[in-house]
Amino acid sequence: MIRTIVWSPDAACPTIRILDQTRLPREEVYLDLDTIPDLCEAILALRIRGAPAIGIAGAYGVALAARLAAREVPERDAPGAGGGGAPDLLARIETDASRLRAVRPTAVNLAWAIDRVLARLRASRAPGGSAARPAPAGDLASLALAEARAIHDEDLAMSRAMGAHGAALLPHGAGILTHCNTGGLATGGLGTALAVVFTAHDQGKAPRVFADETRPLLQGARLTMWELARAGIPATLIVDGAAAWAMKRQRIDAVLVGADRIAANGDAANKIGTYGLAIAAARHGVPFYVVAPSSTFDPALPSGDAIPIEERPATEVLAGWSAGASDADAAPSSAGAWNPAFDVTPAELITGWVSEQGVRRRGDFA
Amino acid sequence: MIRTIVWSPDAACPTIRILDQTRLPREEVYLDLDTIPDLCEAILALRIRGAPAIGIAGAYGVALAARLAAREVPERDAPGAGGGGAPDLLARIETDASRLRAVRPTAVNLAWAIDRVLARLRASRAPGGSAARPAPAGDLASLALAEARAIHDEDLAMSRAMGAHGAALLPHGAGILTHCNTGGLATGGLGTALAVVFTAHDQGKAPRVFADETRPLLQGARLTMWELARAGIPATLIVDGAAAWAMKRQRIDAVLVGADRIAANGDAANKIGTYGLAIAAARHGVPFYVVAPSSTFDPALPSGDAIPIEERPATEVLAGWSAGASDADAAPSSAGAWNPAFDVTPAELITGWVSEQGVRRRGDFA
Repeated sequence: MIRTIVWSPDAACPTIRILDQTRLPREEVYLDLDTIPDLCEAILALRIRGAPAIGIAGAYGVALAARLAAREVPERDAPGAGGGGAPDLLARIETDASRLRAVRPTAVNLAWAIDRVLARLRASRAPGGSAARPAPAGDLASLALAEARAIHDEDLAMSRAMGAHGAALLPHGAGILTHCNTGGLATGGLGTALAVVFTAHDQGKAPRVFADETRPLLQGARLTMWELARAGIPATLIVDGAAAWAMKRQRIDAVLVGADRIAANGDAANKIGTYGLAIAAARHGVPFYVVAPSSTFDPALPSGDAIPIEERPATEVLAGWSAGASDADAAPSSAGAWNPAFDVTPAELITGWVSEQGVRRRGDFA
Repeated sequence: MIRTIVWSPDAACPTIRILDQTRLPREEVYLDLDTIPDLCEAILALRIRGAPAIGIAGAYGVALAARLAAREVPERDAPGAGGGGAPDLLARIETDASRLRAVRPTAVNLAWAIDRVLARLRASRAPGGSAARPAPAGDLASLALAEARAIHDEDLAMSRAMGAHGAALLPHGAGILTHCNTGGLATGGLGTALAVVFTAHDQGKAPRVFADETRPLLQGARLTMWELARAGIPATLIVDGAAAWAMKRQRIDAVLVGADRIAANGDAANKIGTYGLAIAAARHGVPFYVVAPSSTFDPALPSGDAIPIEERPATEVLAGWSAGASDADAAPSSAGAWNPAFDVTPAELITGWVSEQGVRRRGDFA
């Protein structure tokens, strides 16, 4: 299992340790993040990415905020010391949580996980921990960490369940087309769409993967190919533009992708390029599955039109690449770019939604 | 006008001068090619590319072969010297032509242009130039050059005609999505699909372009953006995966692409990624036009299934790029890739075929 993110306990100075995904596959570098700004930077720069993984990072972030707050106001924390205590602490934690929540807008898991930890902290104040007799700061920090760990543990269990539900959909020797990275790096466990591949592989079903490279940041080329090579699963890299042609000229039995947010009607936001894949899959009659835990579903949004789409800097598209046979490595300096990080695939193009609870079909959405 | 390719006349040592497109947009470097192997390398490495442009290069290549052959057998070339003379010369030229023709298999223009120059040379032997009294070698070289120049001149005229026919299809302020590079760099003149944009711009129709970057070799990012910036036409670069989403969220009035070979039924081979674009355009009701001169039509092939598709080295996909926020610059070393350079768009997804002769519609194909 990849150590995508771990809580690194140290009584004096706990850290959130992450594998820096911007440096893969060339080097495996771990970062110890011990401040909220550092964690925000890591999420914004995609050092840790993937909807479930940034949810876990957000949850640990609240735990880190609670620990930091507890360190700074220890004297007010003594039993019976009276004063602000936990209410002040909670306000401080909530401020940090708001900063974390705002870093990336599209994936609902980030806000979901942060809010779940905060709710646990708020609940701890009642009935025994009312505002009049706040819970000790150390208790809040322990509670936050316990909740974050629960989220992390549940993520692994959900990955396994998604893997099993999804693998049951695949024939032996299936050719699978996938986009972006949806493996252990994108989650706290096995992954979402790639969990299905790993499970099918473990079951001896001999899946073969075609991985879209996934411009602009090449998560497919750098991360998915790395995870599949590590697992010994046959994988072929293709440029994003070759996906439709692969459906025509190669054996592709299913397209498996993850999701960053799924609206109440089944519309799914995912990495830019997913929508075009779904259109091509529909034309070729290739089943198109979205694999995501229930924390990715956002019943508050009636349709995908309401999902906020993060636009990232034009420089991700305009620079940082070089052509294979060339030393030219940037578009003309005057060039502009449009760089939406996600698109929305309408439910009508999705064959099934695989979560830890099973497989939903189109008819299951209101 | 871009000097994509010119015949550089020098009595002693003529050369084919090309703008090395692998070094754009960073630097404008011209190469003087004076041997057939050098020209083959330049075409294979895409220093010159684009179906019409490599046709012109092939034609000049035959002229170069004729000139080189004439230099090497001058003594047998004297009037009345008897002996092999032109038949030997023609055989030598044909050998070089075969090498040139084989460099890239998909674009029909390369073979078409080479064969046209050869046919002119063969025809020169009859009636006055029979095998018994072959034409002088210098005459063959002059004939070949004249024919190559005619092909080059006709290409420019065809570009202008395609531009006019295509521009008439566009509304004022049209948003145009395009793929790869189809401008002056891809031809001997204005271009094919981009000629339509240039013409619309000159007519004051204020077109705006969304350019696919076109992985793996980024001809859209490097070349199309460079040409549009040079012409002062508003252009926005997008990753290939964003094209379908652009059709949904931006104003896109038409997709304009080039072609490397068009079968008798209208199926069109073009840069990998074109097929997926056409599928997405059909879903969004966006007109999808293929812009190509009549030399790109290959009536000998009944359908796109018969078009040979060039597969290029996996290294074009696996290496030579780096992610924006990262110093990781290659897929895992064990990774494999599938790198078809072209795909085939079936006629049913094409709204119209714009050539120098006008606009053909689906019903115009048998």
